[in-house]
Amino acid sequence: MNFDLSHIPQRTSKPREAGLTMVMDKGLSLREAENLIESSDHLVDLVKLGFGTSLITKNLQEKIKLYQNAGIVVYLGGTLFEAFLIRGQFDDYRKLLNKLGIDTAEVSDGSIELNHNTKCELIHEMAKDFRTLSEVGSKEAGIIIHPNKWKNMMKAELEAGSWKVIAEARESGNVGIYRPNGSAHVSLISKILEVIPKDKILWEAPQKAQQVWFINQLGANVNLGNIAPNEMIPLETLRLGVRGDTFFNYLPERIDVNKVIAKAKNKK
Amino acid sequence: MNFDLSHIPQRTSKPREAGLTMVMDKGLSLREAENLIESSDHLVDLVKLGFGTSLITKNLQEKIKLYQNAGIVVYLGGTLFEAFLIRGQFDDYRKLLNKLGIDTAEVSDGSIELNHNTKCELIHEMAKDFRTLSEVGSKEAGIIIHPNKWKNMMKAELEAGSWKVIAEARESGNVGIYRPNGSAHVSLISKILEVIPKDKILWEAPQKAQQVWFINQLGANVNLGNIAPNEMIPLETLRLGVRGDTFFNYLPERIDVNKVIAKAKNKK
Amino acid sequence: MNFDLSHIPQRTSKPREAGLTMVMDKGLSLREAENLIESSDHLVDLVKLGFGTSLITKNLQEKIKLYQNAGIVVYLGGTLFEAFLIRGQFDDYRKLLNKLGIDTAEVSDGSIELNHNTKCELIHEMAKDFRTLSEVGSKEAGIIIHPNKWKNMMKAELEAGSWKVIAEARESGNVGIYRPNGSAHVSLISKILEVIPKDKILWEAPQKAQQVWFINQLGANVNLGNIAPNEMIPLETLRLGVRGDTFFNYLPERIDVNKVIAKAKNKK
Repeated sequence: MNFDLSHIPQRTSKPREAGLTMVMDKGLSLREAENLIESSDHLVDLVKLGFGTSLITKNLQEKIKLYQNAGIVVYLGGTLFEAFLIRGQFDDYRKLLNKLGIDTAEVSDGSIELNHNTKCELIHEMAKDFRTLSEVGSKEAGIIIHPNKWKNMMKAELEAGSWKVIAEARESGNVGIYRPNGSAHVSLISKILEVIPKDKILWEAPQKAQQVWFINQLGANVNLGNIAPNEMIPLETLRLGVRGDTFFNYLPERIDVNKVIAKAKNKK
Repeated sequence: MNFDLSHIPQRTSKPREAGLTMVMDKGLSLREAENLIESSDHLVDLVKLGFGTSLITKNLQEKIKLYQNAGIVVYLGGTLFEAFLIRGQFDDYRKLLNKLGIDTAEVSDGSIELNHNTKCELIHEMAKDFRTLSEVGSKEAGIIIHPNKWKNMMKAELEAGSWKVIAEARESGNVGIYRPNGSAHVSLISKILEVIPKDKILWEAPQKAQQVWFINQLGANVNLGNIAPNEMIPLETLRLGVRGDTFFNYLPERIDVNKVIAKAKNKK
Repeated sequence: MNFDLSHIPQRTSKPREAGLTMVMDKGLSLREAENLIESSDHLVDLVKLGFGTSLITKNLQEKIKLYQNAGIVVYLGGTLFEAFLIRGQFDDYRKLLNKLGIDTAEVSDGSIELNHNTKCELIHEMAKDFRTLSEVGSKEAGIIIHPNKWKNMMKAELEAGSWKVIAEARESGNVGIYRPNGSAHVSLISKILEVIPKDKILWEAPQKAQQVWFINQLGANVNLGNIAPNEMIPLETLRLGVRGDTFFNYLPERIDVNKVIAKAKNKK
């Protein structure tokens, strides 16, 4: 921190198990990746090379190394995993990760319909060689999954070997755990939290209001993902209570600033 | 491409006549232009220096050279053409392009009311010296042009010498070929396509849903414009079917991923 | 300017008292700050390090120097001032500004409830040592302040020593002087302007439609703030009338482009 301010919450530090932030890189150039690292390497835990962008981004290998050397975990978006899977290229996918020197993988079924047992087998298989995140929730708008199903799937995926389970929202933030207007499915989320430890879930929260909602509900050290590169620092100010929306989160209740000022005056 | 994946559509390669992508540069610095080139020079065909931004952007000449050296065609936004025209400075405009070493021009009437014959004469005049794009459609919200008029204007402008005709949408994507909410004017577009060959049209499509709509209708090699620099790579993943929204476009019908996996298992 | 165009309004030049533009920096890296300076140092008057981002942005001191060396005034967002104030750390705040070599400060009460007399005392106190901007308006949606109260507060704050008063809108542009949908509170703004000289007000206007509205009402040299870095050049094109929305602002009334062209032809 650049200066001292009282009543700032304790943040976990890297490598984190809670309070993770995952950034969505959807095709940054090397220099743009360096910009992110320069301003935020202490804040970013994971970078996801979103959907199939790794197929066409130039200097891919150099970018992966750049992130890893800055202590940031890199992985490829789940949609690419699904693209390999549906083409019968599962083995190619694992070879690709090894070739790229990537130690983390996402197993998802946001675009395809996968038997859940098969998904768990795939997680189990991947988890032997990779730190594996798995994602629950469809990418399609209007698909409603029953809260019990969410809970059971997340539980089974963690048992199958997932390091964290990701709650789907897309880059846009209007499916999965959110309504089409972007507001949180409150009852769904609280039912999930009855069963799954909160530190085991990474919530995709691309919109600011969604980040605020989760921080207000679950505290500064909630795991959040799909953050745009230029929203990293603003997100951290939300976590720390130095932005309007979370300003009072760590202050004593009913603090009256006028009395604080009067008191300071009297002291002089 | 960084790795092999089956069922990826064949993309045209530069210099393209179809499958063009036009990026809107609304004041990038030299280094930001280099970032775009580094990540996407193989994908970007045209860069438009949007509206009148070229009037005030520093290092304009250097930026134009930078793009041209990377094999990217640069031109100035149509609004600037109109700004010269309405001031009686048409000759100054042509001198400016020559001075800047720009070989491509846009003739438009999005902000002014121009007799269509006069517009076609201007296209004819410009086309003698420059690769000329012309744009159809008003920038004003709520202005409805009859589909027959769209067809006739586009036809006449191509005959007058336009290389491609641009269908107007603005940076915001809510006028011209789109409704105020950004959704496509489906019947207008299909009527245009009855008469005008699709490769002769460059559709402005700044919003992701608009890009998806055109790719789903007209395939991976549709001409799209007004793309934001950081949306170039995501757009290419849509074209290639490695993003959720176009995931199944090039896959065999009714493919069952569970059967694909079972089959792969049995092989072992 | 890169070339000559008639009927372009006279812009003030730096250091400006009117026609100011304030950019919101919410965590730019050093190189991103350099990009902004390269493309726009002649256009940017003020950079606000938004809310509490200065607490965690790396290379803070270097970035401040970078801006200052480019002739840009830097200050810290008002929310951070309030964060110090409510913690009884007002003196620490002034020490911090001195340590950072910052000569400008914002006094605001967007997140806290401050007696207005106390606020004016704080302005008076700060104005002894710093160029002081003060902000009027709550950050909370749905809070309506009576126009008379706006006028009186702005008047009193200027009398207390504010260099300019800022009309609150947040980064999102949907509170304070705007309705929740982002449109301007027209009657509120005109009532404010009955009493407060327009050059003494800095209007936060993060959305393009808001920038257009103020330029159309108050001219090219209106003071505007909370501009995103990549909207600096587009905003200047709005001011200069070389973008669709302000295209006719400085042209003679009822100009007919067809006649202009015909006239030019006849001359030859």
